[in-house]
Amino acid sequence: MEIKEIAEAILPKMIETRRYMHMHPEVSFHEKETYKYILERLREYPDLSIKENVGGGGLLATIGNESHPHIAVRADFDALPIQDEKDVPYKSTVDGVMHACGHDAHTSTLLALVDTVYNNRHNLNGRVSFLFQFAEEVQPGGAISMVRDGVLDGIDKVYGQHYWSQYPTGLIKTKPGPLVASPDYFEITIQGKGGHAAHPHDAVDPIVIVSELITSLQATVARQVSPLDNAVVTVGKVRSGDAFNVIPDTATITGTVRTFKQETKQMIHDIFHREATLTAEKRGATADVLYNFGYPAVINHEAEAEVIRQAADGAGIEFEESKPLMIGEDFSYFINERPGAFFFTGSGNHEKLSDFVHHHPKFDMDEDAMVSGLSMFMKILEIEQVIEWKQASLKN
Amino acid sequence: MEIKEIAEAILPKMIETRRYMHMHPEVSFHEKETYKYILERLREYPDLSIKENVGGGGLLATIGNESHPHIAVRADFDALPIQDEKDVPYKSTVDGVMHACGHDAHTSTLLALVDTVYNNRHNLNGRVSFLFQFAEEVQPGGAISMVRDGVLDGIDKVYGQHYWSQYPTGLIKTKPGPLVASPDYFEITIQGKGGHAAHPHDAVDPIVIVSELITSLQATVARQVSPLDNAVVTVGKVRSGDAFNVIPDTATITGTVRTFKQETKQMIHDIFHREATLTAEKRGATADVLYNFGYPAVINHEAEAEVIRQAADGAGIEFEESKPLMIGEDFSYFINERPGAFFFTGSGNHEKLSDFVHHHPKFDMDEDAMVSGLSMFMKILEIEQVIEWKQASLKN
Amino acid sequence: MEIKEIAEAILPKMIETRRYMHMHPEVSFHEKETYKYILERLREYPDLSIKENVGGGGLLATIGNESHPHIAVRADFDALPIQDEKDVPYKSTVDGVMHACGHDAHTSTLLALVDTVYNNRHNLNGRVSFLFQFAEEVQPGGAISMVRDGVLDGIDKVYGQHYWSQYPTGLIKTKPGPLVASPDYFEITIQGKGGHAAHPHDAVDPIVIVSELITSLQATVARQVSPLDNAVVTVGKVRSGDAFNVIPDTATITGTVRTFKQETKQMIHDIFHREATLTAEKRGATADVLYNFGYPAVINHEAEAEVIRQAADGAGIEFEESKPLMIGEDFSYFINERPGAFFFTGSGNHEKLSDFVHHHPKFDMDEDAMVSGLSMFMKILEIEQVIEWKQASLKN
Amino acid sequence: MEIKEIAEAILPKMIETRRYMHMHPEVSFHEKETYKYILERLREYPDLSIKENVGGGGLLATIGNESHPHIAVRADFDALPIQDEKDVPYKSTVDGVMHACGHDAHTSTLLALVDTVYNNRHNLNGRVSFLFQFAEEVQPGGAISMVRDGVLDGIDKVYGQHYWSQYPTGLIKTKPGPLVASPDYFEITIQGKGGHAAHPHDAVDPIVIVSELITSLQATVARQVSPLDNAVVTVGKVRSGDAFNVIPDTATITGTVRTFKQETKQMIHDIFHREATLTAEKRGATADVLYNFGYPAVINHEAEAEVIRQAADGAGIEFEESKPLMIGEDFSYFINERPGAFFFTGSGNHEKLSDFVHHHPKFDMDEDAMVSGLSMFMKILEIEQVIEWKQASLKN
Repeated sequence: MEIKEIAEAILPKMIETRRYMHMHPEVSFHEKETYKYILERLREYPDLSIKENVGGGGLLATIGNESHPHIAVRADFDALPIQDEKDVPYKSTVDGVMHACGHDAHTSTLLALVDTVYNNRHNLNGRVSFLFQFAEEVQPGGAISMVRDGVLDGIDKVYGQHYWSQYPTGLIKTKPGPLVASPDYFEITIQGKGGHAAHPHDAVDPIVIVSELITSLQATVARQVSPLDNAVVTVGKVRSGDAFNVIPDTATITGTVRTFKQETKQMIHDIFHREATLTAEKRGATADVLYNFGYPAVINHEAEAEVIRQAADGAGIEFEESKPLMIGEDFSYFINERPGAFFFTGSGNHEKLSDFVHHHPKFDMDEDAMVSGLSMFMKILEIEQVIEWKQASLKN
Repeated sequence: MEIKEIAEAILPKMIETRRYMHMHPEVSFHEKETYKYILERLREYPDLSIKENVGGGGLLATIGNESHPHIAVRADFDALPIQDEKDVPYKSTVDGVMHACGHDAHTSTLLALVDTVYNNRHNLNGRVSFLFQFAEEVQPGGAISMVRDGVLDGIDKVYGQHYWSQYPTGLIKTKPGPLVASPDYFEITIQGKGGHAAHPHDAVDPIVIVSELITSLQATVARQVSPLDNAVVTVGKVRSGDAFNVIPDTATITGTVRTFKQETKQMIHDIFHREATLTAEKRGATADVLYNFGYPAVINHEAEAEVIRQAADGAGIEFEESKPLMIGEDFSYFINERPGAFFFTGSGNHEKLSDFVHHHPKFDMDEDAMVSGLSMFMKILEIEQVIEWKQASLKN
Repeated sequence: MEIKEIAEAILPKMIETRRYMHMHPEVSFHEKETYKYILERLREYPDLSIKENVGGGGLLATIGNESHPHIAVRADFDALPIQDEKDVPYKSTVDGVMHACGHDAHTSTLLALVDTVYNNRHNLNGRVSFLFQFAEEVQPGGAISMVRDGVLDGIDKVYGQHYWSQYPTGLIKTKPGPLVASPDYFEITIQGKGGHAAHPHDAVDPIVIVSELITSLQATVARQVSPLDNAVVTVGKVRSGDAFNVIPDTATITGTVRTFKQETKQMIHDIFHREATLTAEKRGATADVLYNFGYPAVINHEAEAEVIRQAADGAGIEFEESKPLMIGEDFSYFINERPGAFFFTGSGNHEKLSDFVHHHPKFDMDEDAMVSGLSMFMKILEIEQVIEWKQASLKN
Repeated sequence: MEIKEIAEAILPKMIETRRYMHMHPEVSFHEKETYKYILERLREYPDLSIKENVGGGGLLATIGNESHPHIAVRADFDALPIQDEKDVPYKSTVDGVMHACGHDAHTSTLLALVDTVYNNRHNLNGRVSFLFQFAEEVQPGGAISMVRDGVLDGIDKVYGQHYWSQYPTGLIKTKPGPLVASPDYFEITIQGKGGHAAHPHDAVDPIVIVSELITSLQATVARQVSPLDNAVVTVGKVRSGDAFNVIPDTATITGTVRTFKQETKQMIHDIFHREATLTAEKRGATADVLYNFGYPAVINHEAEAEVIRQAADGAGIEFEESKPLMIGEDFSYFINERPGAFFFTGSGNHEKLSDFVHHHPKFDMDEDAMVSGLSMFMKILEIEQVIEWKQASLKN
């Protein structure tokens, strides 16, 4: 039996699981019932070693003996504070909460993987671990706590995926090296001195200062970041003043910085403080700078990115080299500690679905994509020589 | 009897009138009852020639025969949409409306001037006209309508004053030439193209454009306006974006331009359109520019400004050369048509009053200042040789 | 005999003197022969009290007893390092040196005034002093040294003039208050770090920094100088880099600041240091700022400016209120110590002369203007009641 | 006999050739004697098919029958207008001209390759072509003319190299995709209107405009180029004005743009015209924009870049993945037409040589590097299965 056939056979169960989760979403750091649900599902497998409350809210399930290789696969299970506006039978039953990013399908796929691996456990040459992660959507995220709690102890490599509705079902994309950016947040308030619009010399005009700063920050990206490096600084919001004829006291900008390298990130962080402070000081004002580091960039290990490409080939799924994506993803905490790689599994389908982006109130995904997701993990485990897929009858 | 003695004798009546008006304020263009009140007061004088509904809401009263000189004095009578927060017996009785700029005292003083001139009408060598103007606070103002309605027909010169609480009672300030600026209003919206914060190249970022524009406008003031001219461009308000990680579609700035010369005003108006349009176009955006001309600057005629100085000397009131003020005043429409001048009459008194600025919910003025105001007009009429103050007993 | 007739009678002598000086120009601080020539001319008058080497290079001549009023008149006598390119008989005989600003005529007029006053010395009611000043063209100028050397001791008031070829002969212009600006000089070098054009992140680009600074300085003029004050900051020269594909180490700008008030001047001086330093520091560079204060502004005293206006009226010469001029003049040192005023005497004549500006190699002036210049000083002395012009026959 | 042994055996001859060329350099488009010298060398091989004057100044030599594969190797042979300041026996004998970039060694290596291939011609399975290119250093370069002249007719693939003294001898570096940038040249002159420094409103100040433009161009790089793309805009030179107190008429900037993609290059070209024009127009000036496209970027074909990596492995030479270099190279014209790749062959040696960069008057290279260079080409031909190195005795 081919891997894909196994995956197709288990698809109805994956859909059932995904829909159940879709109807019962819980926001990040509050996934109490979802946690219980996964735990119950895992307890159906007698020989599965389960570690509970990993990092405060995650689960670790392991099959196999103490030997190596020991390969881990991770799925996240939190939802978003978004009102579900789809009109489908499996629509969210919780007001203002929705699985608008596909984490339900990540988890459903991982549970199916548990099942297939379990059924084939006699052909294991090492161990497979299943990482069920809470709170991916909200900083500081669940991954870092799980890592600190030792979830990776004994594990050799980690793989993960994200279903991605902007790619069609049946397409896998990843790349070696930088795959997902690090998204930082900043907020800068210029504290000037208000006054009458007609007497700028008696005031310290924060609007002129903030304008100089916004312009200056773009020159920084262009001149102080290497042209071979990738960085964006975007001010998304400016607020200052209430009246056309009054110079206000303060001006505030908020925005985001996207980078791929730790040193670029750190450099921009430092420059932000310096530029804001000196630009304000130049005109007699002061600057308050809040700069929050986002998740580290997801930098795929070269060999494991190659495994993913081979897995797609082997499983008969189309593969494309990805460009780096400027979003964020805390899977980076796992592969900063262990070899591993992350990939995007196409889940868009123009024939079945409207084309709503992730985090949109009408977001949905092509559930057939879970065949690709499950197949990929199965094939990866095979390439990593931790299992042979001789037998994979469905338990559930 | 000295002029000042006459003015002091009539002060209680001026206070009574001012307080009555203070308790019954009406906003600009809606001064129905105030108009009636003034009309009734004027009808008490049999020989007074009264022209009603001048320019749609003003009153013109004239004493004297057809001969010259024919000198006019103007007072405005509208109030502001401000909630009176003072705790005084003559507090506004109208919710949300208040005489917060002293126009009540302007009118009260002018009514007292009517009285004194009337009582002394046998010593007139020409004519005196009294211009009661509606709607000074709101563009386009009442002055321009009154002028268009012919209020200045036959009149040789026009004088006006403003009580000013930032100067102490007993001080008169004016200057020849530019006295009060022309205050224009502008609102510029940059229409860019929103997008993901991480993909600026797919968007047209209006925040960067608006920052460039704000900086550019300051260089315009510094380079394109003569250093011997006076101009201010102030952006008082910036609004753009709602989220830190989204490039917004639009950015809007609102602000004011203050100038003294018509050609400077016109030049800045033209430059605003050009700069906004081209700065936007430079980055593929468009700009909507709304530019409303404010009242023209008050440019005192030299000879009449000198009359004011001499009047202060003659009336024994302290005089100081004024700096130009960057506020606005539609008295300019009168002296753009006829010789004339405007002055500020100190009405601040630290012993009696807190120091709240005009337009403040707790604004008040020293009513004794009306002695200065009335004396000034009386002395001006004398210097203009339209009247001799032989007899000035009070009628009312 | 009318003042103007006296002046016209002495005109041939004034022309002779002016042409002699024009043919023998000496640059600032090196006016040895010019000094000797003036001294000889003064020694022709037996009763003249002469003080030599005032302040290192000037001359003070006084007529009259110890009584008051004691009125001084000043003329400067230095020339410029410019090649005379005119084709006239009285062309400069000194290579590369030329009276291209009219100081020869200033001195000639003052010597004529010595003569007329001397001849009328029996009608003096006080004293008249004649200040012959060296080195007006080159900072720090001769005026300050003469003042420090006590040239003003006992003197009540000081008057001075400048012939001005942009105004027609027969026109006098001045104004109370600010008449001539204070011209400061600055030079700012940004010290960055050179590098390959393709690797800006390894360099510190001084061209981007200096551009930010130039833009920022204009915003400073627009925002930090009062709109009622007058200031210009002009960068007249930028130099940076030699190759299109190399980031240079440094960028240098030089320019001038023009102001009328000491506090504005000082504020801009301070801001220049702060802005240059912080703008450089913002990008990791440093700034060297050289800021040389020019002569103080010439601020005419009000009463003496009025004397000038009355003198023009009395002498039958046309008068116009001047605008402030943005040039520089060290006459300011005299009237910062004593009451006094400065005026411009038209010396342009389109029928006789081409229209070359002061400091041009082909500059010339209408010598008839010296009638106006001399008449003005004579009338001023009369109005100041230090002399009556009963008799004024020519000695020389 | 190993490839490397063959290369080592021929090294003395390669050194001799390189030194001869080094002593007789000729600048781009004037390589008459160099051309003759190469032609004579090629004529030593009877069976070599030679095509002369390819594209006006190049040579094409081919060994082998009409069959495929047909692999080409290219070397350039022009020198630079630089004075040789080295103190070595093989120093340039031509005043002001020097092989300061190593093209002598490129050609020497290619002649050695001709020799080794010729000697082994009985083991050819296809054809090998040798492209001797003139004028690489000066736009528009020789490559484009040779391509247009049909030099690639019948050729399947092209390889080329550059000796690089910043990498140590014994190291090969390249990468798939973008390897060498496209270097464009621009010169922008802002035509304003000069005037007195004190009267900016009567002038159009080109210095303020050019400063705004420089700042604006950096924002363009940061905002309008994709963060995943690579682009640099550097202004290397600014010239404006001669005097500190005069506003000049014009300001000129020159600089370079480095990109890797044709569409980025074109976009920046378009934006330059738009930005310069509109920034100038904004202040009433005009802009002259000269924008010269440089060589296209060298974008290595993936498979051939891999061949280079394998060749290094096979030849026992250290290999490192390169970063893109921001220099320029017209080899791009060849691989824009045929599959192929370019690599850098380390030729630095701290023990033998000082560390002068390419184009420096004291530039030199480690001649032993030619062993690597020759070995690489031999191995590449082997991998491409066009030859087997059974026999490779030296003819010369």
